[in-house]
Amino acid sequence: MGGEAAAEQGRRILVAVDEGDESVQALRWCLGTFAAAARGDTVILLYVRPAPPTYSFLDASGYLFSEEVTAAIDRYSREVADAVVEKAQKLCTLYGKEEGEGDHEMNVEVKVAVGDARTVICHMADKLGADLLVMGSHGYGFFKRALLGSVSDYCLKNASCPVLIVKS
Amino acid sequence: MGGEAAAEQGRRILVAVDEGDESVQALRWCLGTFAAAARGDTVILLYVRPAPPTYSFLDASGYLFSEEVTAAIDRYSREVADAVVEKAQKLCTLYGKEEGEGDHEMNVEVKVAVGDARTVICHMADKLGADLLVMGSHGYGFFKRALLGSVSDYCLKNASCPVLIVKS
Repeated sequence: MGGEAAAEQGRRILVAVDEGDESVQALRWCLGTFAAAARGDTVILLYVRPAPPTYSFLDASGYLFSEEVTAAIDRYSREVADAVVEKAQKLCTLYGKEEGEGDHEMNVEVKVAVGDARTVICHMADKLGADLLVMGSHGYGFFKRALLGSVSDYCLKNASCPVLIVKS
Repeated sequence: MGGEAAAEQGRRILVAVDEGDESVQALRWCLGTFAAAARGDTVILLYVRPAPPTYSFLDASGYLFSEEVTAAIDRYSREVADAVVEKAQKLCTLYGKEEGEGDHEMNVEVKVAVGDARTVICHMADKLGADLLVMGSHGYGFFKRALLGSVSDYCLKNASCPVLIVKS
């Protein structure tokens, strides 16, 4: 579990952020109740954007989208990622000030990855040595959730570290 | 969410304990990584023991067990509750010393309730004003889990506070 060691060095807290309100709530909870700059904690903001669409096996020609459309979708996805991450970073700065941590400033790292959110989040939790994964209970949209199952359910089953679920 | 208020007054952390190793891991994680006596946190240990068996609608006579058998089962269940709670309390004392919190001693409350663990845990989280519910991902035995579904799944969906799941 590494509990004691983590307490000495500061804990690495991975927060999965997305476009939804629940992920903002999860980050707020983490900053307000859990993470402590004075303790040397690091908050890692992780946003996973979907892989750009290329082929479709339903499409006889082998291409679903023209290159321009693919590029436009990819550009839009990058812009969304930037906006989500910027908002999350602002929240970290704001909480640092509110909590009055004095000279201590929260260590914040930002990671943007591409792929299936479920597997990427679990992989990153492991790779980044997270002591805790914090996320909302929903996220990633109703239809996608219905199709793929809940991202949080997957992470609860597969992440190698404890998982904290915050509902709005 | 009450995050800021909780940080000032100390947080109320409800840990659902049972006979399983995962619940011990969850408590260890909580004590090693989350709860801080110096911050005024309170750890509430909650053990839910099953209601004593009385009637069975499969049984034509209306009684499944004689009074003696029911009393014996109930006595056994109380003994298990005592053993689990005692072990959990020892762990709290041990961690308090290890962490070297100095003059601060962790506030520990103990609650033993009777009923269906799933609903009782959610109800108690609400009633006790928990800022966080910590539990293992399994617990309550394979057959009961297969029959009723996972206690942690239920609490994730129904608890009014954030839920932290620790796997062994």
